[in-house]
Amino acid sequence: METNVIEQIDALFHAKTIAAFGISAKGGKLGNLLLQSYIDIGYEGELVPIHPTATEIMGLKAYPSLEAFGKPIDLAFIALHPAKVFDAVKDCVRSGAKGIIIFSSGFGERGVDGLRLQEEIVQYARSHGTRIIGPNCMGIYAPTSKISFFPGLPEEAGNVAFLSQSGSLAVQLICAAFLRGVKFSKAVSFGNSADIDLCDLLEYMAWDPETKVITCYVEGIKRGNRFVKIAREVSKKKPIIIWKVGETPGGKKAAHSHTGSIGGDTDLWEKVFDQAGILRVRNVPEMIGHMGAFLNPYLPKGNRVAIISGPGGPAVSSADACEKSGLQLATLTEETKQKVAQIIPEFGTSVQNPVDLSLAIAFDVALNYKAAEIVGKDPNVDCLLIYVSVLQKAIIKGIIQVQKEIQKPIALVATFDPASIMPGGDRIKSLFQPLRPKKTPESLEKLYDNGISFHLTEQDAAKTLASLWKYQRFLQRSS
Amino acid sequence: METNVIEQIDALFHAKTIAAFGISAKGGKLGNLLLQSYIDIGYEGELVPIHPTATEIMGLKAYPSLEAFGKPIDLAFIALHPAKVFDAVKDCVRSGAKGIIIFSSGFGERGVDGLRLQEEIVQYARSHGTRIIGPNCMGIYAPTSKISFFPGLPEEAGNVAFLSQSGSLAVQLICAAFLRGVKFSKAVSFGNSADIDLCDLLEYMAWDPETKVITCYVEGIKRGNRFVKIAREVSKKKPIIIWKVGETPGGKKAAHSHTGSIGGDTDLWEKVFDQAGILRVRNVPEMIGHMGAFLNPYLPKGNRVAIISGPGGPAVSSADACEKSGLQLATLTEETKQKVAQIIPEFGTSVQNPVDLSLAIAFDVALNYKAAEIVGKDPNVDCLLIYVSVLQKAIIKGIIQVQKEIQKPIALVATFDPASIMPGGDRIKSLFQPLRPKKTPESLEKLYDNGISFHLTEQDAAKTLASLWKYQRFLQRSS
Repeated sequence: METNVIEQIDALFHAKTIAAFGISAKGGKLGNLLLQSYIDIGYEGELVPIHPTATEIMGLKAYPSLEAFGKPIDLAFIALHPAKVFDAVKDCVRSGAKGIIIFSSGFGERGVDGLRLQEEIVQYARSHGTRIIGPNCMGIYAPTSKISFFPGLPEEAGNVAFLSQSGSLAVQLICAAFLRGVKFSKAVSFGNSADIDLCDLLEYMAWDPETKVITCYVEGIKRGNRFVKIAREVSKKKPIIIWKVGETPGGKKAAHSHTGSIGGDTDLWEKVFDQAGILRVRNVPEMIGHMGAFLNPYLPKGNRVAIISGPGGPAVSSADACEKSGLQLATLTEETKQKVAQIIPEFGTSVQNPVDLSLAIAFDVALNYKAAEIVGKDPNVDCLLIYVSVLQKAIIKGIIQVQKEIQKPIALVATFDPASIMPGGDRIKSLFQPLRPKKTPESLEKLYDNGISFHLTEQDAAKTLASLWKYQRFLQRSS
Repeated sequence: METNVIEQIDALFHAKTIAAFGISAKGGKLGNLLLQSYIDIGYEGELVPIHPTATEIMGLKAYPSLEAFGKPIDLAFIALHPAKVFDAVKDCVRSGAKGIIIFSSGFGERGVDGLRLQEEIVQYARSHGTRIIGPNCMGIYAPTSKISFFPGLPEEAGNVAFLSQSGSLAVQLICAAFLRGVKFSKAVSFGNSADIDLCDLLEYMAWDPETKVITCYVEGIKRGNRFVKIAREVSKKKPIIIWKVGETPGGKKAAHSHTGSIGGDTDLWEKVFDQAGILRVRNVPEMIGHMGAFLNPYLPKGNRVAIISGPGGPAVSSADACEKSGLQLATLTEETKQKVAQIIPEFGTSVQNPVDLSLAIAFDVALNYKAAEIVGKDPNVDCLLIYVSVLQKAIIKGIIQVQKEIQKPIALVATFDPASIMPGGDRIKSLFQPLRPKKTPESLEKLYDNGISFHLTEQDAAKTLASLWKYQRFLQRSS
């Protein structure tokens, strides 16, 4: 079974014929949106809308049934009323479908009857060798296979996998991450995970040659022992980053009505995640920050962080954030301090850690990476947090150059989102030149290529560096 | 003294003649940057650069001394080497200066000798009726008086006061907040606060008719008892929001070398802030979120929050964030649930709190505010957290309309920064129309005008709603 599931899931990503149930001839239904996703990204196989009366839907030849279509299918998605889903599943199974994406909701997340129907469907399908994704999900996104679950998602592929119990979150996260230069190998919205579940998908992504980092949004995890065992093994190969919700009573209740998940004991999960080397995040910006950090990471040899900041205030705040995240402030050597002292003004600055470059950076932006070079070479320093006001091209270039020499994790924080516009007119624009980099994602991608992550708060940066250290310790323990 | 300090500080904001020490004839010094700030914002009084030899600097007539200038001055800023500052202070005092901004560093933050010199200077100045801001600071920013401490800061005035021990942070925060539609009445960078200190400035801002919300970045607070007494009184008039750093051993050390601050016991400060009705934040985005929320707040009658979300994932995560912040998930009435059920699809949604609108919002963005209207009117609901993917104009308009009827605090969260560009080309743009509102700050200002705050994470939104509730309880206790 273990090796088989990888082949079974891989087959879904390479489906040549996909049937679509629950498409309206008039449009305006969620099923149509899903079918549009495939058309929109340029799916190269055959799309087969099934409709009782229409002969053409959305420019595609429609059939009253799979029997009428007459050829076998590889994959189907079903967006019908829940009462009609089982019949459609039977049709698909008869036509040889390797997998079925059940988009429809109204199953395990809606009480006992829904759960029973869900289980019957899965049992039937599996007994015939057909795997189910969902129900209550959006299915699969795989840019290299030109498969998508929402119109307008990026065509470009990357190396992050995203496994999500929430479909609309997956859509949003993929777009938001894309804006920050993070691209995806594959994403799976698996909803109630009645059949193919998080563990199956973790195993698949651990194998998938396109995937370097595995990230997940999870509301509940079934069969805890199996999860720990699999996650531990997967973590040894690729980092797993999880956004686990349903931690409070209100959150647990919400998770249950959303995907029928049982949240479980929060402290217990915390321990389980630690044992399995899993890194945790709790919102979209933290997730994107971690994705960038783990794409091509240098793992730290220890937890001693050096902070370099232009603004003195954020330097102090970053020191707080680092210590709260479990990092230690590195004690810089005398040699380092002397060298830093030579490049910054005598007053209003600090050569201690955090290194405070002061307003001097307003005259010389190069101080950011000159200081990073000196401090980064200090043998007492395991990783760097660099706080800049604006992520200028010169800084990106300079820090990447420094990274080639020091080869240590670097987390960059900027007060201003590099993807933001300055609507205040020329007065502000002239202050923060060039504030509006035309190619943000490419610049950020270059950072990630070099083990440099990017964040909008010092807390996110500190947490990310701490995650790199946690992962490094896990690998050491497990080797 | 207590009433007097308000007049004394107010005089600085209305200085007609300002002398500048430490300006280079060749440029490139930090003193020049400061002088440029005044020129740049269009200061209407007289600027008097003092220079031993130059007769003109930056287009202004320069004088070798204040004696040579021959007329009294109101204010001066000094950016000289610390060893030369005391002589300049004496010159200013002799010329009748009401206040002196000591930009120079190298005083209390640099050991015993610096501290002694700092104290001598303050004692001398105060004994002659001259007040000192700093040293190790940037001074004052007041758009209505056309006074600034950095070139390019916004000319438009608003109603938030920002008091900061970090000058460069003040510059960054003012710009970053401006991008989110928050504008300032006044800002003071007070550095080591050797004379005019946080308490004086709190009293002044409590009086200042332009200021509605008082916000602070603080590394250390002197004379704790006086602070508690004053802050309590000020909080009754206007909300105080504090970003206090120096909480960990590393942060305390950093604060000491930055502004000579003694951080003090973290738990103690936590209690003090609670007693004084002070709200706390810990980074730039949280600070800006709180600024917007407290500008024209509706204070909640209780802590029962309702969550409305398109994406189901963030709905669950928001529930966690709210409960962790001390809010309770409201139990919606049957009537509310029935009404919500009438406007959303039967499956894939939830009429429980959190209300999950599902992908249905992809077809009808109005669901966001239609649901907000129904839920907001529920007598069991004290405040609302609404999670949208993109902050579209229609949503802003709709929610403002709803707010007029419900008059309860609303925190909006969007996955996408409304000030961000979509560089992914038309594919993504067409998905999230209109993703690039041309007038973000105005839209956001309208939200703030109506007691609606804006955030990029559910945690920031939840914390802000909890702060409004904390402030309301403080006012109730104190009345």
